Amino acid sequence: VHAGAGGLGPELREHEAECRQTLIEALCGAQAVVERGGDAVDAVIAAVRVLEDFEYFNAGTGAALCSDGTVQLSAALMRGSDRAAGAVAGVRTIRNPIVAAQAVMQSHQVLMIGADAERVATAAGVEAQSPHAFVRDHMRARLAAHAHAHDRGTVGAVCLDRSGGLAAATSTGGITGQPPGRVGDTPLIGAGTWANDRVAVSCTGEGEAFIRSGTTRYVSMLVEAGAGLAEATAAALEDVAALGGDGGLIALDAGGRVAMPFTTESMPRGLWRAGADPTAWVAERDPVG
Amino acid sequence: VHAGAGGLGPELREHEAECRQTLIEALCGAQAVVERGGDAVDAVIAAVRVLEDFEYFNAGTGAALCSDGTVQLSAALMRGSDRAAGAVAGVRTIRNPIVAAQAVMQSHQVLMIGADAERVATAAGVEAQSPHAFVRDHMRARLAAHAHAHDRGTVGAVCLDRSGGLAAATSTGGITGQPPGRVGDTPLIGAGTWANDRVAVSCTGEGEAFIRSGTTRYVSMLVEAGAGLAEATAAALEDVAALGGDGGLIALDAGGRVAMPFTTESMPRGLWRAGADPTAWVAERDPVG
Repeated sequence: VHAGAGGLGPELREHEAECRQTLIEALCGAQAVVERGGDAVDAVIAAVRVLEDFEYFNAGTGAALCSDGTVQLSAALMRGSDRAAGAVAGVRTIRNPIVAAQAVMQSHQVLMIGADAERVATAAGVEAQSPHAFVRDHMRARLAAHAHAHDRGTVGAVCLDRSGGLAAATSTGGITGQPPGRVGDTPLIGAGTWANDRVAVSCTGEGEAFIRSGTTRYVSMLVEAGAGLAEATAAALEDVAALGGDGGLIALDAGGRVAMPFTTESMPRGLWRAGADPTAWVAERDPVG
Repeated sequence: VHAGAGGLGPELREHEAECRQTLIEALCGAQAVVERGGDAVDAVIAAVRVLEDFEYFNAGTGAALCSDGTVQLSAALMRGSDRAAGAVAGVRTIRNPIVAAQAVMQSHQVLMIGADAERVATAAGVEAQSPHAFVRDHMRARLAAHAHAHDRGTVGAVCLDRSGGLAAATSTGGITGQPPGRVGDTPLIGAGTWANDRVAVSCTGEGEAFIRSGTTRYVSMLVEAGAGLAEATAAALEDVAALGGDGGLIALDAGGRVAMPFTTESMPRGLWRAGADPTAWVAERDPVG
């Protein structure tokens, strides 16, 4: 799991223990799914739901505010075995956008936007809430101070289940002060989110650069061409950097290898492997990455 | 240029001469830009504007209707030299969505959706019109008859200019009877539209499969890895077919090589090279493709 690449501001330091605890809870949520025989898709949804519900991560409940003071949420989900995918962009009333992405995947669309996406989700039983419920005092203060330097990009999860199935999920509130209607890389399959039978990837960072790089599809192609996961993900972040973008990603291949590189000051992240305890890193650069 | 992969229905046969003439006009529009020293971006916009303005191609004025009888338009634009990109999705009031995509590119966003995208475009001087102006009798009849089998996917253009610059542009009205809020591959960089310094690609077909394939990014990676354009584009359409999708694409590399393959009955398309006359094919499978 990851909770967004970004700066190492006072907010992250102040809430470091809660951030770490939330990452662990997200991993435990995924672990519970996998240990009862659930698949990678359900596991990444379980993890991302926990991350979306934490007010200091930029997704769902903790989403950044647009320039007009509203939230616009995006999320995507992809299953590696058959490359089924679902995504939503620009939704304002869905508490857990990753569950709305699942509803879109089940509807046999791939990407739905705005109020129409909300209708598909709520018709499928996904929980809605007032758009005002997302607006938190600390986010309003951040918007007023133009303090997007303290944003973290996004949250995400990748999973390899007991049957060898891979999945990826990503969810975001965008950038503090972004124009309403802006969509970043998160809900775009092949940009911020990707899974096939070889690799699952979830990105975070300056979304426009990740879109223009086609980051996750690029990682996938490099892995298919024989690159190691560390090499492929480093090359992808170099391509993003060549377009002027910072960020990070988490990637997991069918052999269980993991890479979690980032080019920003920090990227809160965590890892669980069967037989081990979940572990999370918040301000630390090492050991993973 | 292309005007959408799809079936070879009575509408296309009846309007074959007008379709051919419109493709030629689109090529002439791009030719005029290139011959006065304009760049590839302006050339693909000029071509796509002509295609959007023709009532029997599925984009702009000729857009397919959603299940609620409205139009929702999407378009994307990408410049190869620096991978600058702009795109809009789910707009209802912009006569030429490709010009709105240009406005988004100039605003330093990449993807804007819905009414917010319309505001960015009209603030930049892009022409708006009533959403009702898009609703044509023949499209209303097609919606009533559930005749989406006669849809053509999309329109698009790729160009290599005199300075060696590449660009790609794609514009669509989606699928007759699609749920409002659905977004296909057209406005997604790396899925339906892509340009870098090696290749420019514009796709048409079953959008969900093209998204799940990451088609244009895939073509680009294969070309970068040394594949010929015919080989790379054939492999990409095979990957789309493996996901259950039909369609086609046009691709152009930095050496001026062209590929225009499709897996549907037809894909109206045209080609202009400096020193030659523009040529278009409507119902013909050969000679290009």
